[in-house]
Amino acid sequence: MGDGDAHETVDILMTGEMMGIPTHGVIRVPEYIRRIGLGGINVAPHIRVDRRAPALAVVDADNALGPVAGMRGLRAALEMAQETGIAYAGIAESNHFGPLAPYALQACARRMALIVGSNATTTMPPWGGAEARIGNNPLCIALPNPDGAHFILDMAMSVAARGKIRRALREGTTIPEGWAVTRDGGPTTDPAEALEGFLLPMGGHKGSGLSQAVDLLAGLLPGGAFLTGISSWMENPGAPQRIGHFFIAVDAARLHGPGYDGAVREFLQLITSTPPADPAQPVLYPGQREQQLLAAALRDGVSLPAALLAEITQLSQ
Amino acid sequence: MGDGDAHETVDILMTGEMMGIPTHGVIRVPEYIRRIGLGGINVAPHIRVDRRAPALAVVDADNALGPVAGMRGLRAALEMAQETGIAYAGIAESNHFGPLAPYALQACARRMALIVGSNATTTMPPWGGAEARIGNNPLCIALPNPDGAHFILDMAMSVAARGKIRRALREGTTIPEGWAVTRDGGPTTDPAEALEGFLLPMGGHKGSGLSQAVDLLAGLLPGGAFLTGISSWMENPGAPQRIGHFFIAVDAARLHGPGYDGAVREFLQLITSTPPADPAQPVLYPGQREQQLLAAALRDGVSLPAALLAEITQLSQ
Repeated sequence: MGDGDAHETVDILMTGEMMGIPTHGVIRVPEYIRRIGLGGINVAPHIRVDRRAPALAVVDADNALGPVAGMRGLRAALEMAQETGIAYAGIAESNHFGPLAPYALQACARRMALIVGSNATTTMPPWGGAEARIGNNPLCIALPNPDGAHFILDMAMSVAARGKIRRALREGTTIPEGWAVTRDGGPTTDPAEALEGFLLPMGGHKGSGLSQAVDLLAGLLPGGAFLTGISSWMENPGAPQRIGHFFIAVDAARLHGPGYDGAVREFLQLITSTPPADPAQPVLYPGQREQQLLAAALRDGVSLPAALLAEITQLSQ
Repeated sequence: MGDGDAHETVDILMTGEMMGIPTHGVIRVPEYIRRIGLGGINVAPHIRVDRRAPALAVVDADNALGPVAGMRGLRAALEMAQETGIAYAGIAESNHFGPLAPYALQACARRMALIVGSNATTTMPPWGGAEARIGNNPLCIALPNPDGAHFILDMAMSVAARGKIRRALREGTTIPEGWAVTRDGGPTTDPAEALEGFLLPMGGHKGSGLSQAVDLLAGLLPGGAFLTGISSWMENPGAPQRIGHFFIAVDAARLHGPGYDGAVREFLQLITSTPPADPAQPVLYPGQREQQLLAAALRDGVSLPAALLAEITQLSQ
């Protein structure tokens, strides 16, 4: 693949790793390479950006690596928003594109607010259902802070991540009720039953509805695949995933006017100065902890599991 | 107040009532009138719309009734989006503006997708905090369905509404753990303790973060008040609430292209055809039930509590 595309991909995954999101960090490199080997990802895509309106673009990613497609969409949204103030770019025919927070960091560095989301393989039933038809679709909302860590909310729609349930299974512990249900929709605290069943959305019908809303913005609106139309990289690593993403960029300072910096300072200070429930745990705003970890990793480096490092070293030879 | 403003206000509140959202329906009429009587709301506002970019507008509502301010913002967003494809209008210095779904209905009737949100009086601590500094800020995401009920997700950020806890207190029952905490942040199932304490956000830190994100879009970005800057209509009915709202309108069919109608049909059908966990309860998509109630109310009328009707009748004389 092209050097530029490779660098962009590494940048997104390494930033995720350094921000303390290892599930969406370097661990994805062997997976991406395996899928490329199986023909599941197109390393020489012809990505087309189609401007549908002054502030709307649709990107056909031609089955590119997700971060390559994502960065193309991010740049399109940022460029249009510089003219119109707000702009939307939707990306169709993409693949897993890493964590969302690294895209938000790039937007915030250019003083742009960002809303970004993606659909994903279906892992949850819509509320009241007994078959997986919605994904644990991530949504991120970010606002640039001129003084320090940006506000970056990066969340998926389930109560708990599947990885936490896998860990409970490995460690032989139970999981709290409310994380997942059995195959028949019954409550369970058994991680094995939970993994054969379904994740539960946060807030019940609210998380279920929000997952669908993200899919409408990321999958349906750019004319791409949605819901059960998304292919699983675990079950079909050799097939295009057909994932969709969206970016909405907002020129925050132009919208607000000259007092922007002071308003952001006041807002974030009101959050962090909240008396904490536990005096040892000060209240943080979304993204603050992750950017502390990023700064520490840039200074001290980052630890990778030995097995992962060995696997990547082997793949690179 | 002007006839047009009065009609718009009644339209928003009555539509909410008919959609089965009585907490944000006709019950607000006496409250609005009481606040007008106390000088808390400006019935002859000079509302100014300031276009900051081709697709960005800020509306200074001059302490207007919320639905009057909201409708001005909605129209600004829809008009700009017809030119640019997507547009944002933020409204500062407003008041309680009713439920969100009626605004979404109006956008969808004009084939526009809509994201709308508002900040609100602070009732929850940010995650890990022990003092109320964030509101139960509602967020609505809607997509027009050319064939039937539109997709309208209208949600607030708490696990359960305060009204449900008040009802448990009246009825002498307990509430489920996880709805609220005591004044000291401890768990409780006692509705009295819960009402003296705080609502809990859905999904823990996720709902807390989403509440803050909505406030950034609705309060901070239009240059208005946010977090503890919002005044409570219950504690200070004679003071401006300084609430902020935002509307992001997207020209859905122009973005997607000619296949839009079919894609929406397929998406919604995939949701409603999900095998239900309880065979007696078919799976619905967000807003479907509310639009069934609206159709029934337009046909059969709507029931109001006798005391509320008597109060409004008395106020009108």
